[in-house]
Amino acid sequence: MTDTTAIDASLGRPAQEPGHSAPGDMFKFPPPLSEPEIGARRSPAEEARTIVTTTRLTSLATISEDGSPWSSIVGYGVMPSGSLSLVVSTLAEHGRNLARDPRASVAIATPPARGADPLDSGRVTLTGTVRIPEGEDAKLALDSHCEAYPAARAYAKFGDFTLYVLDIERVRWVGGFGRMDSTSGEDYVLAEPDPTEPNGLDAVEHLNADHADALLLIAQEVAGYGDATSVECERIDRYGMDLKIRTLRGVAPARVGWLEPCTDREGLRKASVDLVRHARSKRDA
Amino acid sequence: MTDTTAIDASLGRPAQEPGHSAPGDMFKFPPPLSEPEIGARRSPAEEARTIVTTTRLTSLATISEDGSPWSSIVGYGVMPSGSLSLVVSTLAEHGRNLARDPRASVAIATPPARGADPLDSGRVTLTGTVRIPEGEDAKLALDSHCEAYPAARAYAKFGDFTLYVLDIERVRWVGGFGRMDSTSGEDYVLAEPDPTEPNGLDAVEHLNADHADALLLIAQEVAGYGDATSVECERIDRYGMDLKIRTLRGVAPARVGWLEPCTDREGLRKASVDLVRHARSKRDA
Repeated sequence: MTDTTAIDASLGRPAQEPGHSAPGDMFKFPPPLSEPEIGARRSPAEEARTIVTTTRLTSLATISEDGSPWSSIVGYGVMPSGSLSLVVSTLAEHGRNLARDPRASVAIATPPARGADPLDSGRVTLTGTVRIPEGEDAKLALDSHCEAYPAARAYAKFGDFTLYVLDIERVRWVGGFGRMDSTSGEDYVLAEPDPTEPNGLDAVEHLNADHADALLLIAQEVAGYGDATSVECERIDRYGMDLKIRTLRGVAPARVGWLEPCTDREGLRKASVDLVRHARSKRDA
Repeated sequence: MTDTTAIDASLGRPAQEPGHSAPGDMFKFPPPLSEPEIGARRSPAEEARTIVTTTRLTSLATISEDGSPWSSIVGYGVMPSGSLSLVVSTLAEHGRNLARDPRASVAIATPPARGADPLDSGRVTLTGTVRIPEGEDAKLALDSHCEAYPAARAYAKFGDFTLYVLDIERVRWVGGFGRMDSTSGEDYVLAEPDPTEPNGLDAVEHLNADHADALLLIAQEVAGYGDATSVECERIDRYGMDLKIRTLRGVAPARVGWLEPCTDREGLRKASVDLVRHARSKRDA
């Protein structure tokens, strides 16, 4: 087993899980030279809630008649609790499977950033059990599904379709290389999706294209890499940024937090302006 | 049950499967006025082989320790036989699942065309059993995986990773609304991916943007809709095009075949030029 503490510490949290059985120093990075201001990160439950809101198409794993797994693609809606609403037909094998065995699992992936390694982008596995909702709950489920798929208002009434709610019991989040964690259905229900999503993708492109100097200043003054020579922003969220920092000692991943978490969709611009101002005042102190 | 013969006949093949339990005339379309030149279509096995070549990321359904389904996202390579090569870690639940139960299913989706309904684009479910390849077969499997994921050359050697080959036993293809079929692993192995993929997507945009007159002529002279008023090309493949034709009698889906199937990556341009010439000569006859 290799020591992955270096990665996880630089990303702002202790190593939670054992690492790959890889050559010893494959995942070592140069440490910061001064105390970094890491701030908070999204919890695994927040990551999961956020990914679920970014798309409306998922793979669905069900159990076929002979007990073997069956993977298919379905549309879903998201209920306020984070439970998913599905409208499936018994003409499809997954519909027949769910009618026989309500256990289900979905894997939802965010579209990878342009040019990014698809295995280095966020996805989440949610597992649980489907149930047929009733009364007000059925209305809520159908409404959330039709928000994503308006045509379902018509075909949900066809005799071969069933409206299901998938309540989430277990969550596995993978953010990309070395970023992953598990959490419970209870945590998932309580968490909030990141309100700045999906604006972070545009913000990453904008910062890298037009604000190299500001990123360098942040790496030097806020991330603790006083010897940074160039910086690339890899991800942005309501709490801060993930950076890839080049130094003469090697390349290091680093996390920097905003001064205040963003609370609305448009908060990233102010957060980054405030952070640059903070970095300048540290430099000039 | 509604009668879906109208759709399937207009798409060039008899109805294969029962339709949705929907109001009787929901899927009726105006028929062509003269004999359409439909040509061949890709077989379900060809559709499956083609979809598998268009991406390198899939959802994987496996069976968890408690017998429930588990869906996750993995990268894959494609072997010459169409079997998939997987490199998975036992740090991931899917890796532990496959080590215990080799049954697996993948659902692979083509990225939807711009603005298209994601449920109206191609996807395929493949099910089968994973095995650990040996000798030359292992080399072929690793090479095909590393063609898609070069970094796997390194991590495939980590102690926690296993190289698997997923041999395909059962295939379910869904091309979009009303276009679906099942086939066997044997047919899948024998079929060839469409050599023009993914050029068809660009060809569709190009024809719709710049060649409305040519499409209208094709609809009138080749698809049998002499009363067509406007046409949209929906899909293109090595054998022909799927059109959506507006007439005063309503909107109809229609299939037209090229004069000759395309045999290489760049064949679509010549095929469409030849078809326009053919439509002109019919008009002027």
